Amino acid sequence: MTAETVSLNRSHGGMQGVYKHGSRETGTSMTFSVYVPPHQGDAKLPVVWYLSGLTCTHANVTEKGEFRRTCAELGLIFVAPDTSPRGEGVPGDPAGDYDFGLGAGFYVDATQPAFARNYRMWSYVTEELPELIAAQFPADLKRQSILGHSMGGHGALTIALSHPDRYCAASAFSPIVAPSQVPWGIKALAGYLGENKGAWRKHDTVALIEDGARFSDFLVDCGDADPFLAEQLRPALLERACAKAAIPFTLRLQTGYDHSYYFVSTFMADHLRWHAARLKA
Amino acid sequence: MTAETVSLNRSHGGMQGVYKHGSRETGTSMTFSVYVPPHQGDAKLPVVWYLSGLTCTHANVTEKGEFRRTCAELGLIFVAPDTSPRGEGVPGDPAGDYDFGLGAGFYVDATQPAFARNYRMWSYVTEELPELIAAQFPADLKRQSILGHSMGGHGALTIALSHPDRYCAASAFSPIVAPSQVPWGIKALAGYLGENKGAWRKHDTVALIEDGARFSDFLVDCGDADPFLAEQLRPALLERACAKAAIPFTLRLQTGYDHSYYFVSTFMADHLRWHAARLKA
Repeated sequence: MTAETVSLNRSHGGMQGVYKHGSRETGTSMTFSVYVPPHQGDAKLPVVWYLSGLTCTHANVTEKGEFRRTCAELGLIFVAPDTSPRGEGVPGDPAGDYDFGLGAGFYVDATQPAFARNYRMWSYVTEELPELIAAQFPADLKRQSILGHSMGGHGALTIALSHPDRYCAASAFSPIVAPSQVPWGIKALAGYLGENKGAWRKHDTVALIEDGARFSDFLVDCGDADPFLAEQLRPALLERACAKAAIPFTLRLQTGYDHSYYFVSTFMADHLRWHAARLKA
Repeated sequence: MTAETVSLNRSHGGMQGVYKHGSRETGTSMTFSVYVPPHQGDAKLPVVWYLSGLTCTHANVTEKGEFRRTCAELGLIFVAPDTSPRGEGVPGDPAGDYDFGLGAGFYVDATQPAFARNYRMWSYVTEELPELIAAQFPADLKRQSILGHSMGGHGALTIALSHPDRYCAASAFSPIVAPSQVPWGIKALAGYLGENKGAWRKHDTVALIEDGARFSDFLVDCGDADPFLAEQLRPALLERACAKAAIPFTLRLQTGYDHSYYFVSTFMADHLRWHAARLKA
């Protein structure tokens, strides 16, 4: 199992690569990007996972995320997977909308028959891709952390809560914190997992915490000019859940910022420093 | 004469805008981007002009240039014009190639009949757009500087040499320094200005210096893995011309870097600091 190099560019002293491989989990060709910072000889480096939001591929953060300077400085590998399976025969949203199907895998393993073969982003991100990264890059999988944006913030927080011993840090930009309670999430979880809401709880950050999952601490940035803040993101629900569960939670509501990469890139360096401190990078 | 706002996003404490306006010079609707850093009250700020390369619009550097953090820190307005007129009725390359016509204005005022009405990027960048920027943004046009990439590096250096009292600093990434001597330039200058090579000299950095134009100093970064280095860019020609003319010239050949924005973004902060020092920003 090796990934084929799509492109490789020197940047900020390290190498930004884009790769593709045939995925056993999704049954499709999957594309992802990896930034490897400058490093000495055989050094193994900590790995930061970045999960992207609705409509995105690996390319959005790779081009617009402004993470490389800080990753180079801190010695962090930065991995950006795609957000769903893609390609001929992969089913999308029956209505053709952007918030389900292609570009909207929601980081779950689908159980509904139409989607179960391809939509396995949970296992792809937590099992298959880490194996590949360990095999092909100078990655120290004992030091991993995870962050994401919007739907990818949902992915990062749920994955971290489900693997508290694997990820040393978790943070998010504008995450969907309670998908069971908001339109984007209700559509996606029903579509991939069916109508039994019990099955949704392990893919809902707030519900996971209510059900006893714990993590060391979280950092979340949201923009107060984000058009999705009140209806889809609802960070106060996570704030309340963390308070009840005594999970240290740093929520920063950033004045004037929206949902775009102009926002994400502004605070990316802060998040990477938060991760590096916990990765002992 | 005012520009209409296409988008406006808070980023790194300032505002990244994209604007469009009807241009008297090109006779078309022109789009450009302006980053205004955080600033106090009525302060007037120095302006850095960034000219883009072949195939680019304002968007490439705006999304991938990684200039905002440093502009915010140094208090620099950053303006990125398009690289050519566009739209219905604007003639392009008869052969449909990328290196002439749309996306390839080469920062000249065309004299050839087919192109003379629309292809007036020299006057657009040096006259019309500065007027608009001064009218609509907190810009101090007594403190301007200019840089660019590839074809835009050619634009920045020729414009600076032609207005040494207007621009306080000039630098370039991977510039075309002697268009009269390389395939991209010969095609463009012949196409826009005709076969009389005398008319080309004021749009050729090396020829301008040979003909007596002077500038305080230049900074140029090139990647040694740039596939266009030997045939199209030829920085050694500028190095020789500057040496003969006693123009201080800092040429940095960056190991392993190519022609992409992965390269430009790596050294953007260095260039902005070079400019700020000369703008007394």
